[in-house]
Amino acid sequence: MANQPTLHTILSPGLLNLYDVKDSIVVIIDVFRATSTIATALYNGAEKIIPVAAVEDCIAIGKKLQAITAGERDGKIIEGLQHGNSPAEYPASFIKGKTLVLTTTNGTKLLHMALESGAAEVITGSFPNLTAVSRHLIAMKKNVFLGCSAWKNRFNLEDTMFAGAVINRIKDHFTIRCDSSLMAEDMYNMHKHDMNSFIRKTTHWHRLASYGLEKDLEYCVTPDVANVLPQYKDGALVVGQ
Amino acid sequence: MANQPTLHTILSPGLLNLYDVKDSIVVIIDVFRATSTIATALYNGAEKIIPVAAVEDCIAIGKKLQAITAGERDGKIIEGLQHGNSPAEYPASFIKGKTLVLTTTNGTKLLHMALESGAAEVITGSFPNLTAVSRHLIAMKKNVFLGCSAWKNRFNLEDTMFAGAVINRIKDHFTIRCDSSLMAEDMYNMHKHDMNSFIRKTTHWHRLASYGLEKDLEYCVTPDVANVLPQYKDGALVVGQ
Repeated sequence: MANQPTLHTILSPGLLNLYDVKDSIVVIIDVFRATSTIATALYNGAEKIIPVAAVEDCIAIGKKLQAITAGERDGKIIEGLQHGNSPAEYPASFIKGKTLVLTTTNGTKLLHMALESGAAEVITGSFPNLTAVSRHLIAMKKNVFLGCSAWKNRFNLEDTMFAGAVINRIKDHFTIRCDSSLMAEDMYNMHKHDMNSFIRKTTHWHRLASYGLEKDLEYCVTPDVANVLPQYKDGALVVGQ
Repeated sequence: MANQPTLHTILSPGLLNLYDVKDSIVVIIDVFRATSTIATALYNGAEKIIPVAAVEDCIAIGKKLQAITAGERDGKIIEGLQHGNSPAEYPASFIKGKTLVLTTTNGTKLLHMALESGAAEVITGSFPNLTAVSRHLIAMKKNVFLGCSAWKNRFNLEDTMFAGAVINRIKDHFTIRCDSSLMAEDMYNMHKHDMNSFIRKTTHWHRLASYGLEKDLEYCVTPDVANVLPQYKDGALVVGQ
């Protein structure tokens, strides 16, 4: 219907500048693994997660706040940080009540780009919090951009699949005139029943599986195992409404 | 196999800078309608087609060479040019032996970007010359980039479908580690048997169909009806080997 809000999918941070995200909700998607880790840490009771772009900032803020520092570049833990970018590193026994300062190759970069572009609201999504994200987007009745973090600006399949999963659940509530969104939903419908074998074909799987991360990656495409809404407020991601 | 050439798909001119196309073949894809028109005009006997970026250049070169000027912006014929961007405007009775100077919204722009990036060879492809393009790429044994012209840098489905059609035919001859290519072939396989109904869902269809271009667009997704190889040589597209 004409008076429904619109929905677009942005396949790469390199294409963000083609869209006017002002007054809209931007969903940051980095399935392998930043936004899967963010959902998991908050679900397990982290007080907040501070996403930062640069490693130096991560170290400096971590020291100042006596917080846990974490991050990766090119899939590996960074020297000088305490932890990596795996959801499995953040069980409740470790993360409850704590603050995490996180920097990653792709996801935290896109998040800052969206904030600088004037998005009204920034949330993060991955399969572990698929339902929380979908419900929130329907409830808000605002224009939505599903932002794929990609890999160094190159299109990736796992972020696209998550965009498709969201679209599949919420499309009746939005006006969608966006080929990226049509494609994302098609890809999701084509592979939703064979996700664990499909992700083994992606370039990112080949990149990360060589570090022994297979279980991690399978977790990242499992729906609703950490079903919270990470919402950016006052410089940090916290559990939203 | 490791010693096979590589193949990548570039989903938008806005992502071309992520790839090193030097010493490679770049296939310019603008299904609706520049590269469909280029194949058709050459198939019908045009001597050559000079692709130019700016309307003023189109007019100036047309005057100098006593050539036919043609082009569109946003799907419409441009004031000052003689013809538009429809394959149907270039039957043999009109175009045989003539030179066409062509400017379009997306396709001619990407072609010039590829040339400036140092591509070893630039050819153009669309469904009307699918087999000619596929055979050439197999025969050349060089690295290949399938370049989608997109719509003002936004991803589009019809160019992606053509990339998928090419990949479907030639993939055994290339090493493909590229999520865009995996997606393109999936989308092609999903819709190859319902192409005429599928293209009616795309944003570009809605943009162009309002100008009464339905027959034109159906022609543009019909394989091998103008099966030549448009190859860029000395400033113009000519029929290649």
